[in-house]
Amino acid sequence: MSEIITSVHNPRVKHAAGLREKKQRELDGLMLVDGAEEVSLALASRAVMRTLFCSEHNRDDAYGLLAKARQAGAEVIHVGGRAFEKVAYRDSPDGWVGVFHKPSTALAELRLGVAPLVLVIEAVEKPGNLGAMLRTADAAGADAVISCNPITDLSNPNVVRASKGAVFAVPIAEASTAETLRWLRRHHIKLVAATPAATQSYADVDWRQPIALAVGEEKHGLSDELLTAADISVRIPMRGRVNSLNVSNSAAILLYEAVRQRG
Amino acid sequence: MSEIITSVHNPRVKHAAGLREKKQRELDGLMLVDGAEEVSLALASRAVMRTLFCSEHNRDDAYGLLAKARQAGAEVIHVGGRAFEKVAYRDSPDGWVGVFHKPSTALAELRLGVAPLVLVIEAVEKPGNLGAMLRTADAAGADAVISCNPITDLSNPNVVRASKGAVFAVPIAEASTAETLRWLRRHHIKLVAATPAATQSYADVDWRQPIALAVGEEKHGLSDELLTAADISVRIPMRGRVNSLNVSNSAAILLYEAVRQRG
Repeated sequence: MSEIITSVHNPRVKHAAGLREKKQRELDGLMLVDGAEEVSLALASRAVMRTLFCSEHNRDDAYGLLAKARQAGAEVIHVGGRAFEKVAYRDSPDGWVGVFHKPSTALAELRLGVAPLVLVIEAVEKPGNLGAMLRTADAAGADAVISCNPITDLSNPNVVRASKGAVFAVPIAEASTAETLRWLRRHHIKLVAATPAATQSYADVDWRQPIALAVGEEKHGLSDELLTAADISVRIPMRGRVNSLNVSNSAAILLYEAVRQRG
Repeated sequence: MSEIITSVHNPRVKHAAGLREKKQRELDGLMLVDGAEEVSLALASRAVMRTLFCSEHNRDDAYGLLAKARQAGAEVIHVGGRAFEKVAYRDSPDGWVGVFHKPSTALAELRLGVAPLVLVIEAVEKPGNLGAMLRTADAAGADAVISCNPITDLSNPNVVRASKGAVFAVPIAEASTAETLRWLRRHHIKLVAATPAATQSYADVDWRQPIALAVGEEKHGLSDELLTAADISVRIPMRGRVNSLNVSNSAAILLYEAVRQRG
């Protein structure tokens, strides 16, 4: 086995820890993935791993990450003591952290199937909500997720964690709302806005057509710019006292209605 | 206007801040609700408010909370300076915090309609997930939410926040899994377990019958005890690379399939 790095001052440890900062991620085009399952999913999604940090306390390698890292040409760094804690960012790290190249987030690089299903997320702030939506969009077989006027970038470590690695599984883009609207029009995709102000229930919409579902910021919902441009506005029926749902729960209900209708 | 309390050492301020701790909540049978909208929803749900803390910086009272507090016989305490920060627990408090009596969480007190729809949450840990599920259960018109073998109690301030006050809107109970299973059998409610190991899709189930939907802990899902007792096991189809969804997203998809089928 190679040397074990234990110093929190080691340059590679310090550099990886620095990737918690958006600025550093943008400078380097790199991002962190914490957790064996998440690293494994990222690799299965053909994400490019540069470095794999492996804690000296790891007793097994259930996902075969060491072999996969070597196969992918990634450097494996064995870390001990507080050095691993410095790289990991989860509450209970499991001993594996990968440094990956950030995926492209250019609208122009998205590739669509027939009758595409796209999730448009406008200005959502909470990493937990963003991550859950990436995970659900992947599970629903969405063609892409577009983060509009992003407040929190999709390579934020807490987004990656909440996505369980799905940030690499589903094609993503980051763009302004205006750019997104132009792109949707160019691709003849109908824009369906989820808003409590709508009169039509989501269940009455034909989700088999090419659709981009748009959900908005936690507190104020979608922007007027997006609402005005929407082809269809839908609401989720509310039978109790609350008048809105958590944004990722809304997206899940609507995406899976598309899955159900598309069979 | 009455006197403004500014000291963080004021006994009433200290007591309210102490309600962030589970032990104190259980001792006193009280809990915190932070935010004007949340306090308003709690009052609309007939929750009993004991004290309303109002920041001296509040410029308006959009929800008419001062009048509602007086009508409810609650004490209104005007607080200033760091005293309000001590009572509030959100990142960006809006100047209103209510101290409420904890709702009953006894199984025996749940009242069911015809063809009840119940959400059973087993050992879910994250307050954000619990709160989102309370909110969605209320929106879906669920008769009750039962928290089984709870790790995080439903009066945790972060659960209340994520629920947007729905913790008072939907009847709740906390019980062991064994007690819950007995209660469901006694009320002739079918237990539907959500698990990736199931072969049947949720969309193929008749959700119009009396149903308790069970979702499990974030990492390991439902316990063997509950899975074995289930009448029906259902899966959510996964069309991408991830093999599971965020638990609150799963609950949302399944509860709203019940809403859709029940019309």
